[in-house]
Amino acid sequence: MAQPVLSDLMARKVRESFSRQTFLATLRAEIITLEYGRCALRAPHQPGILQQHGFIHAGVVTTLADTAAGYAALSTLGEDAEVLSAEFKINLLAPAVGEYVIAEAEVVRSGRTLVVVSAAVYAYKAEQRKQVALFQSTMIAVPRDNYT
Amino acid sequence: MAQPVLSDLMARKVRESFSRQTFLATLRAEIITLEYGRCALRAPHQPGILQQHGFIHAGVVTTLADTAAGYAALSTLGEDAEVLSAEFKINLLAPAVGEYVIAEAEVVRSGRTLVVVSAAVYAYKAEQRKQVALFQSTMIAVPRDNYT
Amino acid sequence: MAQPVLSDLMARKVRESFSRQTFLATLRAEIITLEYGRCALRAPHQPGILQQHGFIHAGVVTTLADTAAGYAALSTLGEDAEVLSAEFKINLLAPAVGEYVIAEAEVVRSGRTLVVVSAAVYAYKAEQRKQVALFQSTMIAVPRDNYT
Amino acid sequence: MAQPVLSDLMARKVRESFSRQTFLATLRAEIITLEYGRCALRAPHQPGILQQHGFIHAGVVTTLADTAAGYAALSTLGEDAEVLSAEFKINLLAPAVGEYVIAEAEVVRSGRTLVVVSAAVYAYKAEQRKQVALFQSTMIAVPRDNYT
Repeated sequence: MAQPVLSDLMARKVRESFSRQTFLATLRAEIITLEYGRCALRAPHQPGILQQHGFIHAGVVTTLADTAAGYAALSTLGEDAEVLSAEFKINLLAPAVGEYVIAEAEVVRSGRTLVVVSAAVYAYKAEQRKQVALFQSTMIAVPRDNYT
Repeated sequence: MAQPVLSDLMARKVRESFSRQTFLATLRAEIITLEYGRCALRAPHQPGILQQHGFIHAGVVTTLADTAAGYAALSTLGEDAEVLSAEFKINLLAPAVGEYVIAEAEVVRSGRTLVVVSAAVYAYKAEQRKQVALFQSTMIAVPRDNYT
Repeated sequence: MAQPVLSDLMARKVRESFSRQTFLATLRAEIITLEYGRCALRAPHQPGILQQHGFIHAGVVTTLADTAAGYAALSTLGEDAEVLSAEFKINLLAPAVGEYVIAEAEVVRSGRTLVVVSAAVYAYKAEQRKQVALFQSTMIAVPRDNYT
Repeated sequence: MAQPVLSDLMARKVRESFSRQTFLATLRAEIITLEYGRCALRAPHQPGILQQHGFIHAGVVTTLADTAAGYAALSTLGEDAEVLSAEFKINLLAPAVGEYVIAEAEVVRSGRTLVVVSAAVYAYKAEQRKQVALFQSTMIAVPRDNYT
């Protein structure tokens, strides 16, 4: 069975939505992968995103995972849909130490209303990567006009 | 049985740790409650913390809940302990719309190694509050000298 | 504002649904509270529900919490709705030791599609109760005729 | 780097522990895979484990995932360790319909105190398999003599 392909329209929709998220701009995050059912985001280490021991804050790691998961979910839905995070759970496996972090999200099951997504977050230091988080979420599809 | 009271030493330790978290400064968060087993944080709406529909980003809501939970947990431990978030789960109940959000965390069980914490996050708009998230986490106590 | 009251029709619907769950009969579980947005279940210690150290199995504790949460959620919906557990998370706080366990569930937010529920499970031993679990779940409302 | 191999001693320890879980016997569960960091369990459809629509109960699905996760975690620890489930989260993806279900667990990270495990549960019907759950848990290593 052929793997579905992300339409140009949907790709534009995701990038346009992403560009409106001021918090992602604050984190200097960028989309590095966007396919049907998959999305990856990268954000660099910067002075204003750290916790008390100097690691990248778990809230940043979580934000990246949740946002990547949301766009992975959205990519599997119709072009007039929106998604919201209903809930997520994250295990923090190791401190996020390094030059940047990447969150990679993949849809596990896309239903009519709910989309379940899994994500992993990695920290990159001196070209070595280490998994720092494992994430699992439930996204809910909502009609776009609920928000416009 | 008398409720344990937060020592001055522990209160200073929490505030000193909080002041080192540059991400919390970026969010302009402040501690508004700190008692034995309880912590609440408040952060204001500001232009750089929004998602695509103009609501306060779920990552901000989560960061506040996780941080409040961490200090609620820490307050129940010995003065030479540190805590890390092992994992957490959050349900996002409603968009975070308003002038500010407050995360209120309370320890459910403080064990020798693990501390389980529950938190709620509220958005305040025109002096009305609305619950926007329900959060549950597992914190792990680690000896301070693992990090210094 | 008056608290909504559970209709007789809904109460019958819950009890009839419960009676069809053979797994709950295997666990000898019974409904001990049923109100609008609230449900509690009790199940006794018995030889066939234990884990390797002789405690009541976490799977039993979880089943009771999930089932109580499902009926708490259902009680807030229309009379032709059904609910399914979309997901849940549970922290196991202590071994379930005692003569019986009780799961108490309460709806935190009932939306049009999703219902978020919190539950606690207690073990009772020699008339002392101890909390053994904290549970948080997302239920999804589905039209009844999806299943009949 | 060579993959660690499960010792005979650890394999016996797991099987002996499993045999003491009366709840797993009630579910007629059996171990079908046991390797270093991996465990799979299978349980058949039977009349006493169903929910109200005749599907295998989510509590059964969860019990299998949690138990497989526990033994996957245990297999990575020292021979005098025990593990307990600190917490887990499960997404229920589809009704568990079929002749049997299989839970497959794999360790994501094994630390000194905490072990993070991921699991998937599949229902098998007429030799077709369908994923019915995605599970993520935190296990805590405890010294064996806490329980003997």
